[in-house]
Amino acid sequence: MDETRLVERLAAIGWKGDASVELGPGDDAAVLIGGLVVSTDMTVEGVHFSFEWIAPAEAGFRAAAAALSDMAAMGAAPEALLVSLALPAEDPALGEELQRGVRAAGDRTAAPIVGGDVSRSPGPVVIDVVAVGRVAHDVVKRGGARPGHDLWVSGALGGAAAAVAAWSRGERPEPEARARFVRPPDRARLGTALAAQGLATSMIDISDGLLADARRLASASEAGIRVLEHRVPVDETAGGDLNHALEGGEDYELMFTAHPGAKSDILALGRELSVQLTRIGSVGEEAGVLLEDAEGRRRVPGRGGFDHFTVPSGDPP
Amino acid sequence: MDETRLVERLAAIGWKGDASVELGPGDDAAVLIGGLVVSTDMTVEGVHFSFEWIAPAEAGFRAAAAALSDMAAMGAAPEALLVSLALPAEDPALGEELQRGVRAAGDRTAAPIVGGDVSRSPGPVVIDVVAVGRVAHDVVKRGGARPGHDLWVSGALGGAAAAVAAWSRGERPEPEARARFVRPPDRARLGTALAAQGLATSMIDISDGLLADARRLASASEAGIRVLEHRVPVDETAGGDLNHALEGGEDYELMFTAHPGAKSDILALGRELSVQLTRIGSVGEEAGVLLEDAEGRRRVPGRGGFDHFTVPSGDPP
Repeated sequence: MDETRLVERLAAIGWKGDASVELGPGDDAAVLIGGLVVSTDMTVEGVHFSFEWIAPAEAGFRAAAAALSDMAAMGAAPEALLVSLALPAEDPALGEELQRGVRAAGDRTAAPIVGGDVSRSPGPVVIDVVAVGRVAHDVVKRGGARPGHDLWVSGALGGAAAAVAAWSRGERPEPEARARFVRPPDRARLGTALAAQGLATSMIDISDGLLADARRLASASEAGIRVLEHRVPVDETAGGDLNHALEGGEDYELMFTAHPGAKSDILALGRELSVQLTRIGSVGEEAGVLLEDAEGRRRVPGRGGFDHFTVPSGDPP
Repeated sequence: MDETRLVERLAAIGWKGDASVELGPGDDAAVLIGGLVVSTDMTVEGVHFSFEWIAPAEAGFRAAAAALSDMAAMGAAPEALLVSLALPAEDPALGEELQRGVRAAGDRTAAPIVGGDVSRSPGPVVIDVVAVGRVAHDVVKRGGARPGHDLWVSGALGGAAAAVAAWSRGERPEPEARARFVRPPDRARLGTALAAQGLATSMIDISDGLLADARRLASASEAGIRVLEHRVPVDETAGGDLNHALEGGEDYELMFTAHPGAKSDILALGRELSVQLTRIGSVGEEAGVLLEDAEGRRRVPGRGGFDHFTVPSGDPP
């Protein structure tokens, strides 16, 4: 069973259309009555990172940044974090370093840690970060992409994947690529502005790779996504490797769709926030994701992207 | 470093009195602006339970019941759950059984699973359950106990600890004791009623043992707690062992304080909800927890109760 299928089955068990909330599973976060947005994000040592790669405070920072990225993808302003830690019995103080990293990431968006839990772990360190945010307006869901809309992405992609690839080869990554991995960008202001100004018709954060997350957007919207691969902004730390940008994951940038008429407002917002925003494709009728090159040749990409239960390569030692 | 000290240090790192929420760490749950109550509860295989003891659905049920117990202890009505699971790569379908158990516990209080996360685990199964609830009134905090108040407890204690003790000896527990461990009580209606009727001056759920949690109540209230040990309701499945009731933990009953004048209303509420409510002591001036026997002899109890980082005994295999 692959991860996508497992997540669908878990969602079907947990959620039966119960009307006590505004939005159940299947998006970047759930939305409760009153516009409260909640998500939970689990980071496991030896799966998402290794202490041979990064320091505890960096691991905490990444875990929190990943959780906060889900808030941005809904257009929600982060309000608070909660942190559960499973720690080795011989080194509970490790938890303090992890917590400092979580707090540092929360400080970027004024989201303090308001609660948590701690347990001994007989195995790997586990960090579960809960992010809570709020929307004053409608949330931006994954399912709003319609044929004719443009596809946009923030920032540049592939730097974190280049770092993971270097570590997996037993090498030290370039400092800039390493920095992409340990300090994911804060897109809270961008996400909330896109939502508040009504510029994004659908939105998702790129956690498992551009193509994998584009498939989710396409599936939720019952539409097709065409990615112009020559337009994809490849991070300069990715060594020009387009695959890192397309399939690497860990970018925590925002991908969104918008009406073509919103282009100038979107570019203005990017200038205002000093965030690179790039139009990388469009939404079509045909289901799924298509890659198109500069000569207009189209192909269906392989099913890359990070999957916890089917892709053993690229894992930490 | 013991668990209490570690939790205090983590709270101090994460929380600097930030005013964006109503109540930060240090109670059973955090309270956000608008009366939204959130807590997170991590359950680790080999620490909190063993699959040699209980089935996956039972582990999921327990994990969710523990998280929901924190809502009850605040007087909050549960509204939704989120679940993060770390699962062995060779058996991701185990997650479906865990999820069914979580959903069954949520169904007791109409709290569906609205989101979550899933990861491969190279070690133990980890279940993190986030509970979200809401209060229409003030929450009941740990810090409201004042000298002269009565101390109350719901249900009968020690059954779950008797089951754990049997497993730890390599024996099979009595079916009734086992049931206490796998199906913690649902005290949501009791907690919300105590809060709504203004009957409880302070409240906590008993997760780490009556005495350990009484110390937390005393500390938060800057008062003393006197427990009349002959009044403590020992569960009939605990084999008459008072220590299981005082130090065992895993009961997930509510302990609360109340004005003496509230006694008849509290007893009436217990009859209405068919929950045994027992007055087991009182609040005094002197800090800490005192045990008093039927002859009025007082002693300071040892520091029992479950501590992840200092008590290796009683752990699952």
